[in-house]
Amino acid sequence: MADVAHDGATIGVDLGGTRAKAGLVDASGAIIARDLVAVPEERDEDDIVSLLTELVRGLDPGGGAPIGIAAAGVIDRRHGIVRESPNFPEWKDFALAKRLAEASGRRVHLENDANAVIYGEMACGAARGCEDIVGYTLGTGVGGGIILGGELWRGARGMAGELGHVTVVRDGGRPCGCGNHGCLEQYVGAVGIRRTLEERGGKLAELADSRDAPRDLAKAADAGDDEARAVFAEIGRHLGVAAAAAIHTLDVLTIVLAGGITHAQHLFVPALEAELRARTFASMCEGVRVVVGTLGEDAGVLGAAALARMAAGTER
Amino acid sequence: MADVAHDGATIGVDLGGTRAKAGLVDASGAIIARDLVAVPEERDEDDIVSLLTELVRGLDPGGGAPIGIAAAGVIDRRHGIVRESPNFPEWKDFALAKRLAEASGRRVHLENDANAVIYGEMACGAARGCEDIVGYTLGTGVGGGIILGGELWRGARGMAGELGHVTVVRDGGRPCGCGNHGCLEQYVGAVGIRRTLEERGGKLAELADSRDAPRDLAKAADAGDDEARAVFAEIGRHLGVAAAAAIHTLDVLTIVLAGGITHAQHLFVPALEAELRARTFASMCEGVRVVVGTLGEDAGVLGAAALARMAAGTER
Repeated sequence: MADVAHDGATIGVDLGGTRAKAGLVDASGAIIARDLVAVPEERDEDDIVSLLTELVRGLDPGGGAPIGIAAAGVIDRRHGIVRESPNFPEWKDFALAKRLAEASGRRVHLENDANAVIYGEMACGAARGCEDIVGYTLGTGVGGGIILGGELWRGARGMAGELGHVTVVRDGGRPCGCGNHGCLEQYVGAVGIRRTLEERGGKLAELADSRDAPRDLAKAADAGDDEARAVFAEIGRHLGVAAAAAIHTLDVLTIVLAGGITHAQHLFVPALEAELRARTFASMCEGVRVVVGTLGEDAGVLGAAALARMAAGTER
Repeated sequence: MADVAHDGATIGVDLGGTRAKAGLVDASGAIIARDLVAVPEERDEDDIVSLLTELVRGLDPGGGAPIGIAAAGVIDRRHGIVRESPNFPEWKDFALAKRLAEASGRRVHLENDANAVIYGEMACGAARGCEDIVGYTLGTGVGGGIILGGELWRGARGMAGELGHVTVVRDGGRPCGCGNHGCLEQYVGAVGIRRTLEERGGKLAELADSRDAPRDLAKAADAGDDEARAVFAEIGRHLGVAAAAAIHTLDVLTIVLAGGITHAQHLFVPALEAELRARTFASMCEGVRVVVGTLGEDAGVLGAAALARMAAGTER
């Protein structure tokens, strides 16, 4: 299959701290071929470029499909530079896009991973056809992506959408690595959920040490545990406070929720929606939809591929 | 003077609930001529159109300078319609721009008043040369304007920038007319300050009934009253919490403060800046400037005139 020319196909790469996932994606947003490689602990910049070049060649040996890369951190998209990344703390102003373009002979578009996920949901997922979106990625931490008029808003320095660091507990909030207290990320997402479980103590505290605390907590909630249900309702309220502020600021019509925690959507989305209604006036709230991402684990790959397609179209 | 042709001049109208102010503004942002009329209590739509037509003709009798109008409320800029306005509760979907265009024979651009004020500060005031701005208008209540890439972001339905209704006191906050509790507007701005004074009681409570409570409170603070100083510091912290969330969301580099309360800027901007620094991570906070508007009472007129100029340029 890889030898066949795929008109309009692009390659999406989701570059994580432990592995890189890639997919050859056709113009309809379907993954034609996929691959995954481990990212070695020694994160030499040359090695990463070689690794990604081979990954891409394997998916599209004869072709020249443009590449989109989604990576965590502060990304200078215009110059294709990873300014800093939590997954690769040794990188500083790494010109990843340029290096990979030279090595692979293809156009390369680099994007922040949360931006790519939310863009993917707009391009071929839960928010298809929506133009104004505030999106939250609920994973280990909380990221975000802002889409205005169908385009990602990246901010003056490419740092827009740091929605995990919006304050939701103003006084006495949990300290956050960013220096603030009471950030959304400290209450929502896997790390935040673990902290909540530890703080609450009692029988739920045991779950804090499980490999997948959010999933185990959801199982307990689904089995009727009131305390577990209360933890999820509180997550929904935290998200509702943050989303209401975003809606008052930007007047978007769509809130997208993506990431691993959304498997428990039935346990926290109702509380989120109730908080949104309580905190926005009627004409502002009316017509706003909360949607849960449908692309799952492929969101980063599909979003990066969609961004590469968009960028290629713009450049032509 | 009014008979002289002014190349590139536009007319800005600041349509308030009790009076309409207008200015003929040249391309450099200077007001060449100005006028002001009382808005009658009987707010018949036809009367308003006649009133504004005469006001405009008086300023620019021979010319055809395009008109910009700033008005409070939910504005459908694209269609030039006042959907609803707190100053004119009897209006519902009033096609003010079209009506005035027909009556005056000029192009008319209609804009939300807070948007116009913040745009004015970018066009010819404190934020000249800035492209990415979150602006707060601190008057009786609190409004806002969002400028991204040099253009007003109005939102999916023209309601963006409702920054006065962002929650800053989550639990036990003051009830707001919008249905929420703890809105920024309930603590900052003249009405919010009055409430604070009433709640605090003691000697400051007397100031709550004064005609200009914020100004009298500032006088007390400047005279060394610690309690009055504490009220302003709290205003700064509320604004800092809100602005930090806006910066994390949008990565703007400029926070603009406009409106009457800014006469007391020395009493609350330091606390605002300290809260901003405490609540944003270093690379996000770095380079962010808080600036106080310089256009004063003319901000609405100048902003509306600048928007009319921009719209005329776009249409050509």
